[in-house]
Amino acid sequence: MKENTQIITIKDIARKFKCSPSTVSRALNDNHVINEETRKTIQEYAEKMGYQRNIISLSLLNKSSKTLGVILPNINHFHESSMLEGLQSTFQPLGYLLHICVTNESYELEKQYIERLLANRVDGIFLSISQETFDEEHYEHIEKAIKRDIPLIYIDRKFEGASTNGVVIDDYNGAFLATQHLIEIGCRRIAHLRGPKGLTVSEYRFNGYRDCLLKNNFTIDESLICTTNFEVESAIEPTNYLLDLPQKPDAIFGVNDHVCIGAMHVIRQRCIQIPQQIALVGFDDSPIAQYFYPPLSSVLRQSRQIGLEASTLFLNQLKTNKEMRSSQNIVLPSKLIIRDSSRK
Amino acid sequence: MKENTQIITIKDIARKFKCSPSTVSRALNDNHVINEETRKTIQEYAEKMGYQRNIISLSLLNKSSKTLGVILPNINHFHESSMLEGLQSTFQPLGYLLHICVTNESYELEKQYIERLLANRVDGIFLSISQETFDEEHYEHIEKAIKRDIPLIYIDRKFEGASTNGVVIDDYNGAFLATQHLIEIGCRRIAHLRGPKGLTVSEYRFNGYRDCLLKNNFTIDESLICTTNFEVESAIEPTNYLLDLPQKPDAIFGVNDHVCIGAMHVIRQRCIQIPQQIALVGFDDSPIAQYFYPPLSSVLRQSRQIGLEASTLFLNQLKTNKEMRSSQNIVLPSKLIIRDSSRK
Repeated sequence: MKENTQIITIKDIARKFKCSPSTVSRALNDNHVINEETRKTIQEYAEKMGYQRNIISLSLLNKSSKTLGVILPNINHFHESSMLEGLQSTFQPLGYLLHICVTNESYELEKQYIERLLANRVDGIFLSISQETFDEEHYEHIEKAIKRDIPLIYIDRKFEGASTNGVVIDDYNGAFLATQHLIEIGCRRIAHLRGPKGLTVSEYRFNGYRDCLLKNNFTIDESLICTTNFEVESAIEPTNYLLDLPQKPDAIFGVNDHVCIGAMHVIRQRCIQIPQQIALVGFDDSPIAQYFYPPLSSVLRQSRQIGLEASTLFLNQLKTNKEMRSSQNIVLPSKLIIRDSSRK
Repeated sequence: MKENTQIITIKDIARKFKCSPSTVSRALNDNHVINEETRKTIQEYAEKMGYQRNIISLSLLNKSSKTLGVILPNINHFHESSMLEGLQSTFQPLGYLLHICVTNESYELEKQYIERLLANRVDGIFLSISQETFDEEHYEHIEKAIKRDIPLIYIDRKFEGASTNGVVIDDYNGAFLATQHLIEIGCRRIAHLRGPKGLTVSEYRFNGYRDCLLKNNFTIDESLICTTNFEVESAIEPTNYLLDLPQKPDAIFGVNDHVCIGAMHVIRQRCIQIPQQIALVGFDDSPIAQYFYPPLSSVLRQSRQIGLEASTLFLNQLKTNKEMRSSQNIVLPSKLIIRDSSRK
């Protein structure tokens, strides 16, 4: 493994100059108690030998490691990287390092990551819950983290079972808006490519779709509702199934833009006209949505803003006494962007 | 800030049970020197009070923090998230945490991140160089890191000025293959939407394109070469420019799939037929390339494999004495995937 000779310490430098470690420490911190020449000599030697302040031992003294944990179910889509970008734009100038942990929707990994982050003495954790955590209703690991005196903040996906601060998108209203728009342009058989069951983000969007249909006196046709896993491929089979129905849908509301890419692909292969024969609306308004063929209507979610608001929640918590802290849940509004895929 | 009363230490537990800290430590480590009942009582109390082993102080003893730094210019595309996925699939089961740092192509940030990672005593650094680092030919920060006895491994983008281990893609041959294919299907005016100047990844792809043209006795027409920044939007204006030329190109080779999305959008707007009037080949073979309209030919790069190979380089370095270590540079082959956008 590593050779000890390689990492040079304050003690090594003190030995070299036959002085005390505290003299070296003062010299390296540019303390004027030490005369300028000595300071310069010691600093130059330390630089030459690759001396590096040890933040780990400093963090034991300071009780702050200047590191933060970010736990995400995945980082494959624009949405996640934008949230990260929002967090980073706040924390990078403040000198924080972000530990980014990806759970791939596994509860076991999420639990392990929380343990490791706590053991590594992070100053705070930003958590977007994994699907398995929802499905199996685990929350002990989250409660354990909340019990510790560091801020734990939900981003994007939260767990109702263990309450703390969080920033989420108004998925329900976004889906409601999208469905209302499809009804207003005259669609009567509106299908939904929904997300995995159990995830709040999927459920809220499904509920918005369902409630909008009910409010407009439509009946809910279960045959028009198919489940995807958010990825392009997962929309192929369901779209083929929908287009094979004796009564085809005249619109599809997709749980995100990616499933709409898959749906568009199948629809084009069958030479069905978008939006004349079937209209499409996605969710996320990812940067490529406007370059689809045809350009895709989509619900804008303020992904970067989630990161920014979550950063503010964290910084406010640091400033507040534990007793004075109140749980804050910020819900960011969604906005419908209409493009050719649903412009009749 | 934080209240000290919240973090419970071994000393606190020892005080509670009127025993020595080493007894507590042994009890928590399930050492059978301590009788079972005492062990159980202490363990239960520690659990109840939220005691957490402090990995930071452990890492001072072990000389290993079980953390790794990964520095990337961005994490917006499939390529980067796949490399991360490759690294993670190796290191997660081994108990390593990844610090993921995003430079947004800034040298200053890259330098700061390397400093912070070294100060945090990471066990290794995986680095994909920022554009600014290339442009301004900085390499002192990299050399400083290499001088320290921890593995520094280039992933995807390396800097010739400071040599160490690395895993890169054979960008040159990938671009050569793509251009050769366009020549073989009969294209004679092959444009290139190139990446930013100075980045090895852009230069290698440009060189592959140029050398293939020269080898086939084509002249290099500078008017057919436009610069993008890898993003969809950056291809819009250059493509409009290319299609306004008195002698339009009959093919475009894009530096990645994203610039091809932009190019396709402009070409469709002008009702120009792909591939009949203009053929397209991209680079990356991102998962959405096959769902473009028409499906996009692309050079497959083994992004996940970069992460896997880089992990192996790191683990091999840990096992090898510093004196015995040799610099290894792995170049992964590229492969052309032909789809409708260039199938005549």
